[in-house]
Amino acid sequence: MRYTAVGTRLPRLDGPAHVTGQTQFAADLVLPGMVHAVLVRAQPPHARLLSIDTERAKRMPGVLAVLVGEEGPGLARGKVRYQGEAVAAVAAETRAQARAAARAIVPKYTPLPVVADVRTAILAQAPRVHEGPDRDGLRNVCDHATVRRGDVKKGFAAADYVFAHSFETPWVHQGYLEPHASVAEWNAASGRMTVWTSTQAQFSVRSAVARALKLPASRVRVIGMAVGGGFGGKGSPLLEPIAAELARRCRRPVKLVMTREEEFLANHPCGGSVLELRTGVKKSGELVALEARLLFDTGAYGGAQTGTGAGLVQGPYRIPNLLVEAYGIYTNKPSAGARRALTGPHVHFAIESQIDIIAHALGLDPLEMRLKNVMGKGDPVTGGTMPYSLPEQVIRAAADHAGWSTRRRPRSRGNKVRGIGMAAGHWTCWASPSAAYVHVNDDGSISVVTGAINLSGTDTSFAQIAAECFGLPVARVSVTQADTDTGPYNAGTWHSRVLFGVGEAVRRACEDAKRQLAEAFAEEAGLKPEQVTIAHGQVRAKGGRPIPLGEVMGRAVWHYGPIVGRASLAELPFAISSSAQVAEVEVDRETGQWELKRLTCAQDVGFAINPMSVEGQIEGGASHGIGYALCEEYVYEEGKLLNPDFMDFRMPTSLDHPEYEIALIEEKSDGGPFGAKGVGEPPTIPTAPAIANAIFDAVGVRVCRLPITPERLYQELRRVPSAR
Amino acid sequence: MRYTAVGTRLPRLDGPAHVTGQTQFAADLVLPGMVHAVLVRAQPPHARLLSIDTERAKRMPGVLAVLVGEEGPGLARGKVRYQGEAVAAVAAETRAQARAAARAIVPKYTPLPVVADVRTAILAQAPRVHEGPDRDGLRNVCDHATVRRGDVKKGFAAADYVFAHSFETPWVHQGYLEPHASVAEWNAASGRMTVWTSTQAQFSVRSAVARALKLPASRVRVIGMAVGGGFGGKGSPLLEPIAAELARRCRRPVKLVMTREEEFLANHPCGGSVLELRTGVKKSGELVALEARLLFDTGAYGGAQTGTGAGLVQGPYRIPNLLVEAYGIYTNKPSAGARRALTGPHVHFAIESQIDIIAHALGLDPLEMRLKNVMGKGDPVTGGTMPYSLPEQVIRAAADHAGWSTRRRPRSRGNKVRGIGMAAGHWTCWASPSAAYVHVNDDGSISVVTGAINLSGTDTSFAQIAAECFGLPVARVSVTQADTDTGPYNAGTWHSRVLFGVGEAVRRACEDAKRQLAEAFAEEAGLKPEQVTIAHGQVRAKGGRPIPLGEVMGRAVWHYGPIVGRASLAELPFAISSSAQVAEVEVDRETGQWELKRLTCAQDVGFAINPMSVEGQIEGGASHGIGYALCEEYVYEEGKLLNPDFMDFRMPTSLDHPEYEIALIEEKSDGGPFGAKGVGEPPTIPTAPAIANAIFDAVGVRVCRLPITPERLYQELRRVPSAR
Repeated sequence: MRYTAVGTRLPRLDGPAHVTGQTQFAADLVLPGMVHAVLVRAQPPHARLLSIDTERAKRMPGVLAVLVGEEGPGLARGKVRYQGEAVAAVAAETRAQARAAARAIVPKYTPLPVVADVRTAILAQAPRVHEGPDRDGLRNVCDHATVRRGDVKKGFAAADYVFAHSFETPWVHQGYLEPHASVAEWNAASGRMTVWTSTQAQFSVRSAVARALKLPASRVRVIGMAVGGGFGGKGSPLLEPIAAELARRCRRPVKLVMTREEEFLANHPCGGSVLELRTGVKKSGELVALEARLLFDTGAYGGAQTGTGAGLVQGPYRIPNLLVEAYGIYTNKPSAGARRALTGPHVHFAIESQIDIIAHALGLDPLEMRLKNVMGKGDPVTGGTMPYSLPEQVIRAAADHAGWSTRRRPRSRGNKVRGIGMAAGHWTCWASPSAAYVHVNDDGSISVVTGAINLSGTDTSFAQIAAECFGLPVARVSVTQADTDTGPYNAGTWHSRVLFGVGEAVRRACEDAKRQLAEAFAEEAGLKPEQVTIAHGQVRAKGGRPIPLGEVMGRAVWHYGPIVGRASLAELPFAISSSAQVAEVEVDRETGQWELKRLTCAQDVGFAINPMSVEGQIEGGASHGIGYALCEEYVYEEGKLLNPDFMDFRMPTSLDHPEYEIALIEEKSDGGPFGAKGVGEPPTIPTAPAIANAIFDAVGVRVCRLPITPERLYQELRRVPSAR
Repeated sequence: MRYTAVGTRLPRLDGPAHVTGQTQFAADLVLPGMVHAVLVRAQPPHARLLSIDTERAKRMPGVLAVLVGEEGPGLARGKVRYQGEAVAAVAAETRAQARAAARAIVPKYTPLPVVADVRTAILAQAPRVHEGPDRDGLRNVCDHATVRRGDVKKGFAAADYVFAHSFETPWVHQGYLEPHASVAEWNAASGRMTVWTSTQAQFSVRSAVARALKLPASRVRVIGMAVGGGFGGKGSPLLEPIAAELARRCRRPVKLVMTREEEFLANHPCGGSVLELRTGVKKSGELVALEARLLFDTGAYGGAQTGTGAGLVQGPYRIPNLLVEAYGIYTNKPSAGARRALTGPHVHFAIESQIDIIAHALGLDPLEMRLKNVMGKGDPVTGGTMPYSLPEQVIRAAADHAGWSTRRRPRSRGNKVRGIGMAAGHWTCWASPSAAYVHVNDDGSISVVTGAINLSGTDTSFAQIAAECFGLPVARVSVTQADTDTGPYNAGTWHSRVLFGVGEAVRRACEDAKRQLAEAFAEEAGLKPEQVTIAHGQVRAKGGRPIPLGEVMGRAVWHYGPIVGRASLAELPFAISSSAQVAEVEVDRETGQWELKRLTCAQDVGFAINPMSVEGQIEGGASHGIGYALCEEYVYEEGKLLNPDFMDFRMPTSLDHPEYEIALIEEKSDGGPFGAKGVGEPPTIPTAPAIANAIFDAVGVRVCRLPITPERLYQELRRVPSAR
């Protein structure tokens, strides 16, 4: 099968509007009569809230509404549990007036002891973030997941060696440029709420606003605007319910935009973790048992999905005996969200570091160690059974493209020493609720409609899919991200699911539309639908001349009706996205300064609908991994964030990025459109451990805590005199 | 079957927003960087366009673009053919600047002889509005339709009497308050055009803009705004292509709003007609033959659909021998549109007046005359066969409710004399392309989506239909008029088709959604879908407890997928909408002043989904008929309109309206939702002839030309000394 539209490199269709400033973001919106809201945020990370004096604020010029406690959805009640928690909301004619009034609001607190990190939060003497009993002897447990396979006791009994390590990952910001922004408008006459917002999941926002305002979902319209970066940070409703409540009270449209400082204090950052792994292995390197206790820091109000991490911690390895206990732990920090791959980078940093440690301890090549244990077709895996042996292919591809065999030995130049490291990544493909409409217009052009927020260029891929299905140029296809009133329901834009699930819905909706068109044409021509084919933008009856789509549609709509293809799905055949990366670093053994020189990324993508976009996702995902390894970290002191800005929370710049080598492995999946899989998250998973392993390779120092800042590496180099 | 949502009186859901000023119309839109356009309009009704000097205008402050001739879609090329035809378009930073520049544009003309009305336009010596050959010996023929049945020659041979009359109807404005308004925005980066506009047919606008700008329809998004009245006057694209072209050239959003004077000169008013009827009748009153020549004044560029008038001129009467020749005739006037019922009021004024004339001539009661000839089940009718004998029921109902038998004799009081008259109306129900989506939201509320412009409260009826299908309160249903990107294709909001066709699509989409929901529930419960019923907002398995929709949906979406009901159709079983009205007037025989005292309106509505809305449509339709009878008329002098405003083009005020008596005949149709039919147009059809017949009944004067202004009636009363 030769494709004409899918499988070709196509710049994002929304790219030109973005780079020429024509794209409208939520903060750009100006509505007639619009007023501005500001949230008053708590300074103490943990305190009893005694009172809030709002009298002065209410009398200040331009102030229209001041809400506290139960008056406003999401405002603290009785206690504050993290620095930056909203305690009051103000709406005023101008933003300056709202800010002035917010400053005039003085909450009174009694400080409470701060629960700073998960290691201490679980202890019996720890203060409680929320009231409630301990669980499994641990305090402050928010949620818990167990994964069990085989018999770990027997596994460890059969092991020749047991390796136990503890790994730690930091809290990090997702690094999107656009702060959270929402505009809400209440139509009192019709009892309907409209919310324009920057979100990855407009239907989740609808549910949250409907619940908060006690409205049926059918009366809440959420219009997902263009998103200036999300990466998992805009997956949960944040400002929308309070903006909506203010708009309803003021009977004026209300705009609420976070400042950069608020973005750091009170968004949904990626939470940190402490991951304790005990791994049993035979002399040969064969893994026989893994026991893990995973502590995910979920912040003050929960958010981490411990089940995902528990399922992923074995990585792409066959480990017959497994016992994983994963806990979400409350601390006095904001509610944790995801960054690209929910908990994937956390647990892979642990397992991929430990595999490397074991390989070195047993004198095995880390590549050989991985290949010896990598899962193959038929092996059990969380959520199903491995449907193929792609992880091995992907690991081999990464090694081959990186020249693993020839570059194994560290080379030095003065204080600078080079090292090479590898890591693999394991991610499951989920479709989740997905739907699409496909309209064949009266001139034969195609309009695709979904309710999926277009973050990573998926709309461009949808256009390619529809163009392929009808045999049309992409220029004759438009894709619209409809709002929650007009678009079909969709789960959020996360978990690399949009192209996989919604893309398949688009493909099926195209086939549905083609079926209708064939029926309409057959009806008119006195044929059976199966005698009609649609390809190359034409309709053709068996033996007849091809007729352009537009000509057929112009008539069909009048005797058959509008052609409205539709598809809906929630599940697709089980698929795994595998990735593997080889990092090459140069470390200065005097200063701990290190540089990523080259990153080889191999990834099983099923089928690359748009290879340009896939490569972009791989580089973007790896970039997050680089930041995770190199420099990104929320620095807390007693629950107070010391670096709430992009100056002090440093993300990698273009100078920190290496030369990329990308290898796409295309073996079509059963479920995704044309065999495609989701590609955005797998590439962020192995980057940090590959770098950590490369640093070890270079200087013989193992850093089990991210990020591996030069300072931290310098300290380690000094502590371990044996380091090369 | 007891209904809970349909069949109940419900105020329009959009009413509160309209009356509190919250509804946003196209002219209310303000976009960032928006500029303003003005059209330069021709003064001479017919002239050769020699040159247009735009140099001065182009140099004036704020002017961004000046288009003439082929540069702008819809601008006159070479000739102007009606007063008010656009010859140039200007866009400038402010509306004042655009108007100033428009005034500075000086077209040079050579006047041409004006083709003033259809009677002279068809003559051999008439000037031609467009070049082209004569047709059937007639000049300036735009289009032509013939309806033939039986053998008129034989019919007339069998007749005892032949009556020949000529009737005349005026050009009238539809009387909507909101002038045409469009805003267009070109996104150069994505090559996409967005148009916000006041239209009855957003998909027609999309086609027109796409054709004019040579874009695929998929790149043109038309957002139909709330419409401040249409009544057939906003059925055709008007401002949108030129606004779009200006926006593309200026690379700025462009707003174009017509003035009231422009509305009269250059909209699509309802065209006039001259209708010549020759009717053969037996002594008994039995109609045996009708030969008609219908001349519809279509204005300079066509628009009248002569076929509709040709099919309707027989009214609801059985006439075995028929020959109708209908012509659309070009004149130097704007392009004709429709007002409520395309050509229906025209031809019914003719046939219903003539039936009355014949009845009086034969000494028959006009009611008896009608009942003798009224169509019954099985009679042939244009477009099909009468499926029932409803016209008779409707005529009898009108007579009964008006007390026809007891109030037949004129009563006088000084110069004031009362009269009573009746007329019937005949209209076909067409579905035309119709489609709908129905989303079951995760809380069990329902969102209905169509691409149909909501003019007459149809969205409220859709909400009732969906509420009925699911057994929910209407408050849990929302209806969204989606734009052309997101909504399914729809024919225009005209011909009383929206409730009939789109309403049925909504009903079917609800059933489709219920089928999916039953499948999803059955799948989960291990049942067959036919064991599951959905009613009262609940899902129930055979023998099981009822579960609220929201609870079922919350799970179904995750294993089955989004529930997205869909329906599409173009045709429904043939149906006729019948109406009959009895007018009671009081005429001052000295002055010709007359007053409509009472109007009894009977109408076959199939099933009244919302009786309040149906009654509103009947009163509104009759109101148009009253204006048609009483006072509305474009007054032209050599092609120049003398009364281009609502002061001199008088429409009936509240004081001109009578007491209404409404009788709804509900016999369910086969095709419409719950048996409903379209109701907006039938009530405007019989009003004017019923009044004309009542005036004859009062004073014995037959006026065959509308409107029957007091002045015209006064002249007739003086001309006919025999008048009572």
